[in-house]
Amino acid sequence: MTVSVAVAGASGYAGGELLRLLLAHPEVRIGAVTAHSNAGDLLGAHQPHLRALADRVLEPTSVDTLAGHDVVFLALPHGQSHELAAALTERTPDVLVVDCGADHRLTDPVAWETFYGGEHPGSWPYGLPELPGARDALRGTRRVAVPGCYPTAASLALVPALAAGLVEPDVVVVAASGTSGAGKSPKAHLLGAEVMGSVSAYGVGGGHRHTPEMMQNFAAAAGRSVSVSFTPMLVPMPRGILATVSAPVTAGVDAAQVRAAYEKAYGDEPFVTLLPEGQWPTTAATVGANTCLLQVAVDAAAGRLIVVAAIDNLTKGTAGGAVQSMNLALGFAETAGLPTEGVAP
Amino acid sequence: MTVSVAVAGASGYAGGELLRLLLAHPEVRIGAVTAHSNAGDLLGAHQPHLRALADRVLEPTSVDTLAGHDVVFLALPHGQSHELAAALTERTPDVLVVDCGADHRLTDPVAWETFYGGEHPGSWPYGLPELPGARDALRGTRRVAVPGCYPTAASLALVPALAAGLVEPDVVVVAASGTSGAGKSPKAHLLGAEVMGSVSAYGVGGGHRHTPEMMQNFAAAAGRSVSVSFTPMLVPMPRGILATVSAPVTAGVDAAQVRAAYEKAYGDEPFVTLLPEGQWPTTAATVGANTCLLQVAVDAAAGRLIVVAAIDNLTKGTAGGAVQSMNLALGFAETAGLPTEGVAP
Amino acid sequence: MTVSVAVAGASGYAGGELLRLLLAHPEVRIGAVTAHSNAGDLLGAHQPHLRALADRVLEPTSVDTLAGHDVVFLALPHGQSHELAAALTERTPDVLVVDCGADHRLTDPVAWETFYGGEHPGSWPYGLPELPGARDALRGTRRVAVPGCYPTAASLALVPALAAGLVEPDVVVVAASGTSGAGKSPKAHLLGAEVMGSVSAYGVGGGHRHTPEMMQNFAAAAGRSVSVSFTPMLVPMPRGILATVSAPVTAGVDAAQVRAAYEKAYGDEPFVTLLPEGQWPTTAATVGANTCLLQVAVDAAAGRLIVVAAIDNLTKGTAGGAVQSMNLALGFAETAGLPTEGVAP
Amino acid sequence: MTVSVAVAGASGYAGGELLRLLLAHPEVRIGAVTAHSNAGDLLGAHQPHLRALADRVLEPTSVDTLAGHDVVFLALPHGQSHELAAALTERTPDVLVVDCGADHRLTDPVAWETFYGGEHPGSWPYGLPELPGARDALRGTRRVAVPGCYPTAASLALVPALAAGLVEPDVVVVAASGTSGAGKSPKAHLLGAEVMGSVSAYGVGGGHRHTPEMMQNFAAAAGRSVSVSFTPMLVPMPRGILATVSAPVTAGVDAAQVRAAYEKAYGDEPFVTLLPEGQWPTTAATVGANTCLLQVAVDAAAGRLIVVAAIDNLTKGTAGGAVQSMNLALGFAETAGLPTEGVAP
Repeated sequence: MTVSVAVAGASGYAGGELLRLLLAHPEVRIGAVTAHSNAGDLLGAHQPHLRALADRVLEPTSVDTLAGHDVVFLALPHGQSHELAAALTERTPDVLVVDCGADHRLTDPVAWETFYGGEHPGSWPYGLPELPGARDALRGTRRVAVPGCYPTAASLALVPALAAGLVEPDVVVVAASGTSGAGKSPKAHLLGAEVMGSVSAYGVGGGHRHTPEMMQNFAAAAGRSVSVSFTPMLVPMPRGILATVSAPVTAGVDAAQVRAAYEKAYGDEPFVTLLPEGQWPTTAATVGANTCLLQVAVDAAAGRLIVVAAIDNLTKGTAGGAVQSMNLALGFAETAGLPTEGVAP
Repeated sequence: MTVSVAVAGASGYAGGELLRLLLAHPEVRIGAVTAHSNAGDLLGAHQPHLRALADRVLEPTSVDTLAGHDVVFLALPHGQSHELAAALTERTPDVLVVDCGADHRLTDPVAWETFYGGEHPGSWPYGLPELPGARDALRGTRRVAVPGCYPTAASLALVPALAAGLVEPDVVVVAASGTSGAGKSPKAHLLGAEVMGSVSAYGVGGGHRHTPEMMQNFAAAAGRSVSVSFTPMLVPMPRGILATVSAPVTAGVDAAQVRAAYEKAYGDEPFVTLLPEGQWPTTAATVGANTCLLQVAVDAAAGRLIVVAAIDNLTKGTAGGAVQSMNLALGFAETAGLPTEGVAP
Repeated sequence: MTVSVAVAGASGYAGGELLRLLLAHPEVRIGAVTAHSNAGDLLGAHQPHLRALADRVLEPTSVDTLAGHDVVFLALPHGQSHELAAALTERTPDVLVVDCGADHRLTDPVAWETFYGGEHPGSWPYGLPELPGARDALRGTRRVAVPGCYPTAASLALVPALAAGLVEPDVVVVAASGTSGAGKSPKAHLLGAEVMGSVSAYGVGGGHRHTPEMMQNFAAAAGRSVSVSFTPMLVPMPRGILATVSAPVTAGVDAAQVRAAYEKAYGDEPFVTLLPEGQWPTTAATVGANTCLLQVAVDAAAGRLIVVAAIDNLTKGTAGGAVQSMNLALGFAETAGLPTEGVAP
Repeated sequence: MTVSVAVAGASGYAGGELLRLLLAHPEVRIGAVTAHSNAGDLLGAHQPHLRALADRVLEPTSVDTLAGHDVVFLALPHGQSHELAAALTERTPDVLVVDCGADHRLTDPVAWETFYGGEHPGSWPYGLPELPGARDALRGTRRVAVPGCYPTAASLALVPALAAGLVEPDVVVVAASGTSGAGKSPKAHLLGAEVMGSVSAYGVGGGHRHTPEMMQNFAAAAGRSVSVSFTPMLVPMPRGILATVSAPVTAGVDAAQVRAAYEKAYGDEPFVTLLPEGQWPTTAATVGANTCLLQVAVDAAAGRLIVVAAIDNLTKGTAGGAVQSMNLALGFAETAGLPTEGVAP
């Protein structure tokens, strides 16, 4: 079976990574590639690494250009997916809409209003299959909310410990991201001369919009509300997230119990790996791959569990997670078209 | 048909890239992975990005571990391939040996002695199929000499102009390389703190061993000897080569003629692309892909043709060229297992 | 008054930064520059950026070469400063020994034994003048233990809050460092090709030797023992540390109180700056400068104070702190020879 | 004597570097700092590394704000310096105007019209004192045209050989630049995610505006017109230029003659250094310093002289050259306020 797929926002970083993965997907035929201000340009001018699509013309992002496909991936500014999905379904009743934006990730209207403002657009099945229950919710769905890149890393890092009751619900997340996570719109603080040779923090103190998404995933796993202090950092590399996630260990819990819980949680997962003891994740090992590499440590003196997770923010953190969710929604092999080998060094 | 493949030097950069490509090759089963000082380690400790092979044990590099495979890729220090190939053939008469080292690239014993020293080990079919005549020589061969990374870029850049008589045989090559080209042996001047934020030249003045290889390729195309001034540079990135290759244009030659010659030379090539006018190659667009991106310009005032070529030194510049040659040698589709989409940004 | 200064370990990163600063110091004349395995080489071969000293010959590190100077800076492997200092004093009774190594930082023999092993070499006045009481202890001393780079950043970040009783003694430090912090000895995981494009954590779970040093500084400020969970990261840049330091805010404490405490603590400090509200530190702004840039945030939802501190690990984090301590010890202006302007971008 | 100095364009990269150097200049008091669209902001928001000026308010760039100073540095878009200089002189007759832009570099109206268009604004004394005759022209001048960054590197690299008649007038320049050379205006292709991990060429084929400036300097040295093929590259670092400059050696010229010519040309220069044989320049060694490091090689087989030059594009390549010229114009020590020690690693 081959499905036709459209990608909206094809000139951006998430759109480019979606196309790279979809080109290698055995069940997919790439249809419309659309953009907003870059419509009319050749895709090759914006994504010179995608040789097979270099001569494609970017069409305008609209219901007209996107309708008629089996799957539509949306990599758009927030607030644009809800009505577009409805209009697409009207024209193509069975269309699968995979939203890489934030619109439908949060289930709590108050959290939505606090962090994004305006009316809550409602939540869709959450595209992180490795979370408890998520895989089932994705099977057969026609709507997917792809997680944020930081919540993907942080949730994969701590959910097993929270779900197994090994840590207290008081989490500190400090995560370093490559600058593609900030998108392709030109801004002075994202210039190469600014970011090379420099690390900075931003959104410090609880303001980053990925905070409520982590809280939501953590609370679902723990069965109670979880406090999250989240500090993101920009580091001088194009891709990758390294998340350091820690929480107080519950009294009596030791390293072996922790390790066992992660082995149980991820032993059968194709994309999430607890590394052998003594080996720590590097983001380079995940570049271009739909993988998450983890390592755990219990600091007995400080009484904390520390989990370090590495992903590629554009692959497992966005486009890979989106394709993985599509595979589940359409009944393909979950791993179809998704690399597990990174491009390193 | 599936062939069994061994990789010697599997803990290094070329070896890792070979394995990454071979894992995705539809006709290949990966057999022995061998190393010298790292023998006995898990491959995952040295190549953490290759998840599918993480639990493989590195065997010692020897005839015993390598014999019995249909194909053996050698990524070894120079001087080691000749006797090993002979010994392997004795045990496995039809074995295809693909040598990523320099031993069998040069046809001229004098050039060999001047740049490498010692007795000339003889030349093997040269693994750059896009050169005139090279593809035919590779079909059915049981020996391949994979080109050096700089000569790959420089030769693809200038051979069409030389072959068409559009330039004079007086070439200047200045090429910037990512530091993986210098290998994985720890040296102080290759430390991250040294190379980040710095560009340097080395082997200036004709001393780099890739110089005679460029001269050989250029002379074969031009039908006469060609002078080459080659200056390599180390630039702060892991992968990629950008070669700037120039030569005096022959009297009366204009830009349209040059463009036509390159379109003719590469119009049907799956891995080499002359970009549309106005678009210049970036190495990022080739990362992890077996591609070469080219652009040409005629500087009328200076009377020179300038060709800029981008490749990934580890892919088209080494491991990709090696696999492409294997495909030809064994009668597979030339493009089997070889990505044309880079991983960018 | 001009003092003669020797630098042991002059071919390394800390040694090079010491020499760069000392060259600009108005009261200093640079005497012997010594090294271990590089003795006999010209300094210019190892520190090509120090033009004024390029022709100096590296002498062997020994009592003979170091004795006779007014000041001796030691940038040596740990375990070597104690006996050397004693021997130097025997020859030059008033010599000031400034130790950039770890030997004399810890006051607690148990902590020393746990993290470094062997007999406790005793503690010297601690070269972080901005800590309560430290400045007085440095005035007139003939022994200085220069702090570790991470403890410098973390201590400047949190000591004011701990000293003012604004946070609970349960601290999480996650700090990203440029790779010069790992030194100049060639190791495979520090190669440019490995570190560029990659972030990794190391020493996770309490094992890093800078942990007890942070605990010591925090406890002194808080007046009680303080728990510290410390996770260091390597990020792809040559220099700089960004430390994210957080702790639970004490009940009833608000952002204004925090800000006031930091303004009081650092308002008169020449090298430590609380940035205006809304501006966050970048490591680039501190490159080559003896500065620490700070910003604070109270996350009311998570109940934590988060402080972000940026320093240059080689300047304020090592060599600059060493020179600042020398200035105090010898009665020079504390700011003599110390730049406050970074080299950016 | 202390002079008052204004900097126009103080929020950009050249302006920031000027201020960094001027802060350390013993004869200078910094007056107005002005900007265009950033006027009204605190300088600290745009140049966070300049702590001593963080609280300065950026004034609008105008005759009113700039007049009344002894020296005015202009770091403005081209076309704006001529009238501004005239107006400033009307108000402050003895004002020294140092133009970091291109307006007054070219002496040839035809070259100006070809590369910049419009009416030739006339030429001013050229701020590269190391060129033959340039130093004298700068003494006492009230107008300085600061060279372009690429011409600074290329001219220092080849002028001694051209002046001594050691090479033929047929020059190939390939130069790699850090991205600060492209300025601080946000553009998509200069984003960190685009430039990290990538090298690209631009302005290939003779189109770059620094080409005629090189031709002018080369011709003046050679005493005849000189052909120049110039290819600039963007490399992933914030600062630095490495220029590889080559030309055919004149018959009979050997390496010793070349070396002697460079030693003679630069033996007494405080900022230009021919490195010892065997040592090649790195851009890192010049970061933040007003230095140019050179090495030469004669490739006998190719019949070319190759000179490699490293500078910091913002220091010797712009702001340092500007301050050096000011020193000459005002009769200060030529080296006043100018560092020769780079910040490395």
